[in-house]
Amino acid sequence: MATQGQVITCKAAVAWEPNKPLAIEDVQVAPPQAGEVRVKILYTALCHTDAYTWSGKDPEGLFPCILGHEAAGIVESVGEGVTEVQPGDHVIPCYQAECRECKFCKSGKTNLCGKIRAATGAGVMMNDRKSRFSVNGKPIYHFMGTSTFSQYTVVHDVSVAKIDPKAPLDKVCLLGCGVPTGLGAVWNTAKVEPGSNVAIFGLGTVGLAVAEGAKAAGASRIIGIDINSKKFDRAKNFGVTEFVNPKDHEKPIQQVIIDLTDGGVDYSFECIGNVKIMRAALECCHKGWGTSVIVGVAASGEEISTRPFQLVTGRVWKGTAFGGFKSRSQVPWLVEKYMKKEIKIDEYITHNLTLGEINEAFELMHEGECLRCVLKVQA
Amino acid sequence: MATQGQVITCKAAVAWEPNKPLAIEDVQVAPPQAGEVRVKILYTALCHTDAYTWSGKDPEGLFPCILGHEAAGIVESVGEGVTEVQPGDHVIPCYQAECRECKFCKSGKTNLCGKIRAATGAGVMMNDRKSRFSVNGKPIYHFMGTSTFSQYTVVHDVSVAKIDPKAPLDKVCLLGCGVPTGLGAVWNTAKVEPGSNVAIFGLGTVGLAVAEGAKAAGASRIIGIDINSKKFDRAKNFGVTEFVNPKDHEKPIQQVIIDLTDGGVDYSFECIGNVKIMRAALECCHKGWGTSVIVGVAASGEEISTRPFQLVTGRVWKGTAFGGFKSRSQVPWLVEKYMKKEIKIDEYITHNLTLGEINEAFELMHEGECLRCVLKVQA
Ligand SMILES: NC(=O)c1ccc[n+]([C@@H]2O[C@H](COP(=O)([O-])OP(=O)(O)OC[C@H]3O[C@@H](n4cnc5c(N)ncnc54)[C@H](O)[C@@H]3O)[C@@H](O)[C@H]2O)c1
Ligand SMILES: NC(=O)c1ccc[n+]([C@@H]2O[C@H](COP(=O)([O-])OP(=O)(O)OC[C@H]3O[C@@H](n4cnc5c(N)ncnc54)[C@H](O)[C@@H]3O)[C@@H](O)[C@H]2O)c1
Ligand SMILES: [Zn+2]
Ligand SMILES: [Zn+2]
Ligand SMILES: [Zn+2]
Ligand SMILES: [Zn+2]
Repeated sequence: MATQGQVITCKAAVAWEPNKPLAIEDVQVAPPQAGEVRVKILYTALCHTDAYTWSGKDPEGLFPCILGHEAAGIVESVGEGVTEVQPGDHVIPCYQAECRECKFCKSGKTNLCGKIRAATGAGVMMNDRKSRFSVNGKPIYHFMGTSTFSQYTVVHDVSVAKIDPKAPLDKVCLLGCGVPTGLGAVWNTAKVEPGSNVAIFGLGTVGLAVAEGAKAAGASRIIGIDINSKKFDRAKNFGVTEFVNPKDHEKPIQQVIIDLTDGGVDYSFECIGNVKIMRAALECCHKGWGTSVIVGVAASGEEISTRPFQLVTGRVWKGTAFGGFKSRSQVPWLVEKYMKKEIKIDEYITHNLTLGEINEAFELMHEGECLRCVLKVQA
Repeated sequence: MATQGQVITCKAAVAWEPNKPLAIEDVQVAPPQAGEVRVKILYTALCHTDAYTWSGKDPEGLFPCILGHEAAGIVESVGEGVTEVQPGDHVIPCYQAECRECKFCKSGKTNLCGKIRAATGAGVMMNDRKSRFSVNGKPIYHFMGTSTFSQYTVVHDVSVAKIDPKAPLDKVCLLGCGVPTGLGAVWNTAKVEPGSNVAIFGLGTVGLAVAEGAKAAGASRIIGIDINSKKFDRAKNFGVTEFVNPKDHEKPIQQVIIDLTDGGVDYSFECIGNVKIMRAALECCHKGWGTSVIVGVAASGEEISTRPFQLVTGRVWKGTAFGGFKSRSQVPWLVEKYMKKEIKIDEYITHNLTLGEINEAFELMHEGECLRCVLKVQA
């Protein structure tokens, strides 16, 4: 390829400072070094973690940076030693790496991977602990090891999932974060069995994917809880069978759910990021066996709490990151499931804009009507 | 039997008021009604729940009452409809009932039983919602459905485990609470696998039984944590391989354990009842899979807390009641295991006294040297 080994200048949305509109800049993207892959991003969606870091509330957020972690693209070139993908491969960048060699990957017990965490946490690449992005010589930090709000990005080879080239990239980009998180919370973390009662707190993309996963797992009652009653109509299509708006009740929401289910649900999922609701989600579980999974990400420093008696009497408190899916191994399988119409994606996409309209896209996230907004990244 | 159908007058230790010495009284024990069993108690041990309720700190504690829930005896007579035990059977009263009929018992997911909870929580018997104990006509409340600090007690038939008559009652009385709790926390609740690293906070009877269970499960490192360094020598006999006294370290104890184990333990157990240590026990678990089991019982109103990130990154928080053992079904099996020398009991008994010396026995509990004190109940 003409660009291989060259610095590429392309458009990217740069977050220069917390809470200031993103600026579309001409960014220089250095070639991939050993173990790295440069990816031409075709489509990216926005997720709450982008908004959270952008807001400046994330104490680990580094600026200036290029945000974005829910995307799909095509490999442009690869660095030394990269064997599993080659230029032209269709890929989904994955913020959860999978090296297949570290203690975590080999444990068989988790999808977390330790290999590149130190570098991605510091906004740089492993090989030289530097960024591949710059604007007029000024380095711009990477974000979550993905930085997909850019026409080209550089990622570690352990962070790209190679997918079926026939898959529509403007849809499967969603398999980079929210949809797998919800499905996997049900299938991998909670392991919901047929006939179970399920409560889902928050009916955004993640909560709806939990509903879809629970329906596929054969759950018999799927109770959706949201403070926005408009969410219910759409939620029915994803499997929610009953809707509760906490604002319609004087009792604490955990008590409402317990009363509704003769003692509590078998499984609950917090898909909001609110520590008070995490407690309610645990406490609405059935004594003896109810399991609650924390999916939402709370603001830094916030804490969950409950009486230990809740656990001593048999409730289990868990959490999930990327739904427990091993990224490189399982994202391609999720793409296949979508191609076979076994999982939804299109239905989560409520808006389509371009990279140049990214600030409007962030504003849409605060609107109740928006699930996922997909941005066309190339001109 | 001569006493069948009659009121029996016998000795019992009555807690007239919180925190006042127990009084050995002549107590009238009414005959068992439908579904009830009157048991002649031969031996009883003391446990922390007795001391907690006696202290007055338990807001659900009812006075006057007869405490005690770790005991063994012989059936004296049975009420109408009782078929599974008969006079002369050797039994262990169980504070966790097992009716085999309720939603809990039939779930296959828990050892909790809902059948008689409302009555035992109110200190009475199900049949007429009254107590079978009185002193000069004044009713004395039951405790935990067992009330074993009495020469005779009345329990529900769903709360007695019939055991091998050859088992020494002065030993197997311990199978009424502490020892099964620790063993079961490992075998049933955590399901520790061979090769695991385990941390045990608190090396009293329950913590030592966790160590014994972990050793039997094939754990490779069993780290005992206690603020009393004298506990370590004895703990070695129960399987503890390393000892840590938090007082010897400036770092928080969770960090000490993480450093010692290259990232944290696979399983941790809180066997103290201290909510701060419950948090430490969770946080010293390995990212990705570490599971923490709360065994200790905290004071009423106290709460556990942590950052939700601890769970989102793969740790699991659980608890256990009676180690997850189904009482009537599995206590006899534990008795068999003791008879075959597969589990220890004798080693947990550090003191032997009589019912008349019960106040001294309570004082012994505060001494570091005491594990279990067994009282001879009959003259
Ligand atoms: N664990 C992971 O790996 C992972 C991955 C992706 C996203 N997340 C997190 O999942 C959460 C949900 O993401 P999303 O994209 O679905 O968000 P979203 O904002 O689209 O959905 C949140 C929903 O919760 C509702 N809500 C807000 N407060 C509520 C309350 N008090 N009670 C009931 N409902 C309430 C909102 O009306 C909304 O419908 C976020 O915290 C996100 O950061 C976690
Ligand atoms: N969940 C259940 O079903 C169940 C059943 C029985 C007992 N329990 C509870 O288990 C707990 C333990 O019972 P036990 O009989 O072994 O008690 P114990 O008092 O004999 O043992 C507690 C141990 O913890 C140590 N300790 C105290 N504070 C500590 C600290 N800050 N750090 C480290 N170690 C500390 C003490 O030195 C002691 O060795 C109690 O809370 C009891 O109520 C629960
Ligand atoms: Zn995301
Ligand atoms: Zn790895
Ligand atoms: Zn006890
Ligand atoms: Zn039952």
